[in-house]
Amino acid sequence: MANKKIGIVIGSDSDLITMKEAVQILREFEVDCDVHVISAHRSPEIVHTFAVEAEKKYEVVIAAAGGAAHLAGVIASLTPIPVIGVPIQTSGLGGLDSLLSTVQMPAGIPVATLGIGKSGAVNAALLAVQIISTSEPKLRQKFVQYKKKLADEVVKKDKAVQAELGSL
Amino acid sequence: MANKKIGIVIGSDSDLITMKEAVQILREFEVDCDVHVISAHRSPEIVHTFAVEAEKKYEVVIAAAGGAAHLAGVIASLTPIPVIGVPIQTSGLGGLDSLLSTVQMPAGIPVATLGIGKSGAVNAALLAVQIISTSEPKLRQKFVQYKKKLADEVVKKDKAVQAELGSL
Amino acid sequence: MANKKIGIVIGSDSDLITMKEAVQILREFEVDCDVHVISAHRSPEIVHTFAVEAEKKYEVVIAAAGGAAHLAGVIASLTPIPVIGVPIQTSGLGGLDSLLSTVQMPAGIPVATLGIGKSGAVNAALLAVQIISTSEPKLRQKFVQYKKKLADEVVKKDKAVQAELGSL
Amino acid sequence: MANKKIGIVIGSDSDLITMKEAVQILREFEVDCDVHVISAHRSPEIVHTFAVEAEKKYEVVIAAAGGAAHLAGVIASLTPIPVIGVPIQTSGLGGLDSLLSTVQMPAGIPVATLGIGKSGAVNAALLAVQIISTSEPKLRQKFVQYKKKLADEVVKKDKAVQAELGSL
Amino acid sequence: MANKKIGIVIGSDSDLITMKEAVQILREFEVDCDVHVISAHRSPEIVHTFAVEAEKKYEVVIAAAGGAAHLAGVIASLTPIPVIGVPIQTSGLGGLDSLLSTVQMPAGIPVATLGIGKSGAVNAALLAVQIISTSEPKLRQKFVQYKKKLADEVVKKDKAVQAELGSL
Amino acid sequence: MANKKIGIVIGSDSDLITMKEAVQILREFEVDCDVHVISAHRSPEIVHTFAVEAEKKYEVVIAAAGGAAHLAGVIASLTPIPVIGVPIQTSGLGGLDSLLSTVQMPAGIPVATLGIGKSGAVNAALLAVQIISTSEPKLRQKFVQYKKKLADEVVKKDKAVQAELGSL
Amino acid sequence: MANKKIGIVIGSDSDLITMKEAVQILREFEVDCDVHVISAHRSPEIVHTFAVEAEKKYEVVIAAAGGAAHLAGVIASLTPIPVIGVPIQTSGLGGLDSLLSTVQMPAGIPVATLGIGKSGAVNAALLAVQIISTSEPKLRQKFVQYKKKLADEVVKKDKAVQAELGSL
Amino acid sequence: MANKKIGIVIGSDSDLITMKEAVQILREFEVDCDVHVISAHRSPEIVHTFAVEAEKKYEVVIAAAGGAAHLAGVIASLTPIPVIGVPIQTSGLGGLDSLLSTVQMPAGIPVATLGIGKSGAVNAALLAVQIISTSEPKLRQKFVQYKKKLADEVVKKDKAVQAELGSL
Repeated sequence: MANKKIGIVIGSDSDLITMKEAVQILREFEVDCDVHVISAHRSPEIVHTFAVEAEKKYEVVIAAAGGAAHLAGVIASLTPIPVIGVPIQTSGLGGLDSLLSTVQMPAGIPVATLGIGKSGAVNAALLAVQIISTSEPKLRQKFVQYKKKLADEVVKKDKAVQAELGSL
Repeated sequence: MANKKIGIVIGSDSDLITMKEAVQILREFEVDCDVHVISAHRSPEIVHTFAVEAEKKYEVVIAAAGGAAHLAGVIASLTPIPVIGVPIQTSGLGGLDSLLSTVQMPAGIPVATLGIGKSGAVNAALLAVQIISTSEPKLRQKFVQYKKKLADEVVKKDKAVQAELGSL
Repeated sequence: MANKKIGIVIGSDSDLITMKEAVQILREFEVDCDVHVISAHRSPEIVHTFAVEAEKKYEVVIAAAGGAAHLAGVIASLTPIPVIGVPIQTSGLGGLDSLLSTVQMPAGIPVATLGIGKSGAVNAALLAVQIISTSEPKLRQKFVQYKKKLADEVVKKDKAVQAELGSL
Repeated sequence: MANKKIGIVIGSDSDLITMKEAVQILREFEVDCDVHVISAHRSPEIVHTFAVEAEKKYEVVIAAAGGAAHLAGVIASLTPIPVIGVPIQTSGLGGLDSLLSTVQMPAGIPVATLGIGKSGAVNAALLAVQIISTSEPKLRQKFVQYKKKLADEVVKKDKAVQAELGSL
Repeated sequence: MANKKIGIVIGSDSDLITMKEAVQILREFEVDCDVHVISAHRSPEIVHTFAVEAEKKYEVVIAAAGGAAHLAGVIASLTPIPVIGVPIQTSGLGGLDSLLSTVQMPAGIPVATLGIGKSGAVNAALLAVQIISTSEPKLRQKFVQYKKKLADEVVKKDKAVQAELGSL
Repeated sequence: MANKKIGIVIGSDSDLITMKEAVQILREFEVDCDVHVISAHRSPEIVHTFAVEAEKKYEVVIAAAGGAAHLAGVIASLTPIPVIGVPIQTSGLGGLDSLLSTVQMPAGIPVATLGIGKSGAVNAALLAVQIISTSEPKLRQKFVQYKKKLADEVVKKDKAVQAELGSL
Repeated sequence: MANKKIGIVIGSDSDLITMKEAVQILREFEVDCDVHVISAHRSPEIVHTFAVEAEKKYEVVIAAAGGAAHLAGVIASLTPIPVIGVPIQTSGLGGLDSLLSTVQMPAGIPVATLGIGKSGAVNAALLAVQIISTSEPKLRQKFVQYKKKLADEVVKKDKAVQAELGSL
Repeated sequence: MANKKIGIVIGSDSDLITMKEAVQILREFEVDCDVHVISAHRSPEIVHTFAVEAEKKYEVVIAAAGGAAHLAGVIASLTPIPVIGVPIQTSGLGGLDSLLSTVQMPAGIPVATLGIGKSGAVNAALLAVQIISTSEPKLRQKFVQYKKKLADEVVKKDKAVQAELGSL
């Protein structure tokens, strides 16, 4: 998958804490990725260039932003490749603002939106993996393994809970 | 005020019903305006050009959009002139999505946001008038007259209510 | 693209009004699709079978549901292929319930969520097209054309608005 | 009541902090219970098996989950026994997402939903006790005692408040 | 089941439109029920008497109310039998007020809450059936049949949708 | 004002932290008050007795509760004297649940509702003072003095801010 | 009660539909009232004069407004008499904006807030009656009668429901 | 710009923490400003005087307040100059109350509203700068420089992120 790359962009460097979760997942799947801080509002020309050139470099773009979170939508307007949005949790409204700004796109320009915060970041990476997997059977297989591992972990946690409750 | 012009942009032609209220106010104040349908998401290059050239043509831009309403923010990112945002009412969430997408801008890029729907449209036009009035004493005077007229109308409505209640 | 098929599922036949928008988009792109009414809650075994077999039949699944909208999440839990969720508008809470039930998935199981209602339905189909396009250059080209058409329509609407406002 | 058992399931081991409150209540009433970590999304096959077999083992199932909280609904779809849902509090939206995902079930598949968090956990256990009590007069009697004790505690707290305020 | 009766109470006669759905379900299951208009706020003494005597007459109480919906909670505070709450949809806030007033009960006094409006009414009746079924195997069997019928109806609706889409 | 007394009731002793603000205001105005912990749900008979006898003891009742906050409404249903409601802040939904449960009363049974938390507690006491003042000119005078003091404090705070900003 | 008068003010003449409910209640109780259209924002000087002089004319002021509903708060800031707020339902946000703008007053300046819309209007009038009743035993008696009538009406409605359900 | 001054007002001295961000921005742009603590509710006469005289002293007023945030609207009702509103974050509702109270102004009286909290404070100052810039080309130039600096900072942060991720 060396030539299939994911472009991750964050609207602020403070969003990196959340999006490291996505980077880690992609590394786990050995899917290459770039992470860039670009702001739809503070560095619009850089975002414009990024978006227009995204198709040449990336299979999928993941964009994370908070508040009036326009980053994913702006990129989606300028590229034909799939754009995934991660709404960052905010202190005032808990991320409801980020979520609605990301997901409520007008007909014509989809942003594939995941949940608020770290769960959303993990899932953005997994969705990118799923998308690439539609034409990469080996990656699909890895993803199937990943799902099995998730189920196994639940079983392990169940055993730990039995132990904990038994000893109460 | 022939050379002081307001640029009004709407994300969809269906937003015109709301924004005609703004056009009417500007005509009442004899402030020139353009209205254009440009979409941050469907016609991003046109929005880009509009925003970059806005300073040459307009004193102020008013942008109205609904849902993940990015139009005002995208323009604000590309022009130094004041950008006013009008959140359009939506059928599902009543315009809460439009409001949060417009107002919750990151530090650095203000969008002067008004209320949801027609009241917001009227007020966007009035705010544009107020902004131009900071250097146009005659327009300021007109605005003062407008405020007086508003107060007078309230008095008239009060009389009508007295009549209506008296006859019950 | 004859062998690349999209599976559309709706939780209730009343959701068909919304999802016909998606069917129309897929037909426009000549991407084959099935539409099935299956309910995560009323016909769980059918959903289970559908989800387990989805990988054999479909590239992508689009699931639309309202209220406690579990359909997309349940399918996503049982298939490695990308699952796209469309929250249906509801009469009481406007679709906020559908949106949160669809998008707030736990880490590990992504549902690519679009906006509430018909815009979301259109965008779900377009996202499916984008995903298939990652390995189908001709479909990518069609999508690029589609985006151009969207921009052209905005320009036409702009002209119509000029005409309408000029005649006021 | 040795042969009347409650099955408690949690979507994540982190939900145990909340649901220990329910376990404690059931132990207080000497109603037997199991607690299992099973995830509607991460271990769907285990959930499926659990739900299909629930009728054989349990009188009632209590399911707690957060975010897009599908666990209670998924189980309810596969068993005829009463299913009680506890929405777990979430960091972003405070549990509004968990609540709506749990309670807004379609006609046909009830989930008896309690409040967000620990109060909901306590009440889920008490509701299970009430349900069993419909055919166990001795348990009903215990429940009546429990209610009396609650009222007595309020009286004690009232006295403590009098003391505290008197000494100010 | 002649001697197992459900007490349905509504806070206002306008709530009957919603709660007829519940009555119909109970008649379908041949479970006897009373329906009474009693208001926690307008006729509190009648509610008090109803609640104190409920245990003698009913297996379960279903209480539906809108706005500051206290009816279910007030009854639950005065009876040891299970109390089921149905939040009525409201014109201003869509029933969010009714839902939160019904579900967010303090620890100690559970109200088994269903969804807003007619779906909630249907499910309240079904939950009552499920509760009685814990000690009535024949009713349990009927409920299992009901669930099968629901699944069959989904299959029929699926066929209707195939027909409709095929003819487009 | 020795014979004009305010009855303050709280649904839980944890609400005392909030309601001490009200006690302090009433002491400042030398208006006598009782504080009692009584729970609409856990000690309904005590609440019933309290409410029925309230008219004999109190001019006004202030009731504070959180979550499904029924205390004020239940008392209002049983007494003709004014009932003031204070919604307590909650950890999950911030007090939106308490507010809606308190304020959205049906036509016929008013609860005079103040803001969420400590501001609401202070204002509940002041509203009680205002109500008594309608027939106690001396208390009215004290209230006028209180309002002047508030304004003076704002002026002092303004000076402190000038000092702080000057030294930056 | 000829010399005890209630001042009702509405922010817009369109609010009269809602507030006629209040007028009717006051006439039923033979409590005199004025209704005036005055706008906190459009006719602030008139509001200022009204508020400053309110104490001389009225026992209580009822203020109804929608959106950023400041009318009640502005009057409360300028008078020592009790001010009651009625949040008007709005088309976009259902009146949540009106409610929060009315109820969330800072410590020091209470606004006694009732529910959104017509129920709130009825209750505002009843609260005014309750407040005057604190020093008018005859009005108190009338109010007690009114509460009895409410309870009687519930009983009548209950009978009507029995008839309706019996004939199904 | 010595004679072009901004008036900043805060409803409470605790709002200064938020609004220092605005002061700092204005000092950076060498735009003179005053900061005053004045409360729409606690010191209404001072607010009245401030608002009536604002036109003589200031080009623009920035008003920050929390909860039922009326300060900006009250001032806007009494002055023809532009009024900018900053909703302060609140502990219960996160600032949704402040936002709706500030932005949902009736047609006729605009308040240019920015985001909740510190981002809103920064943007309020920048909007004031933009407004003055409409007639001060040098300030416009500074603002253009400021926007460039913002973009440069994003580039720097991007480099820092590259470094951080490279070393993981």
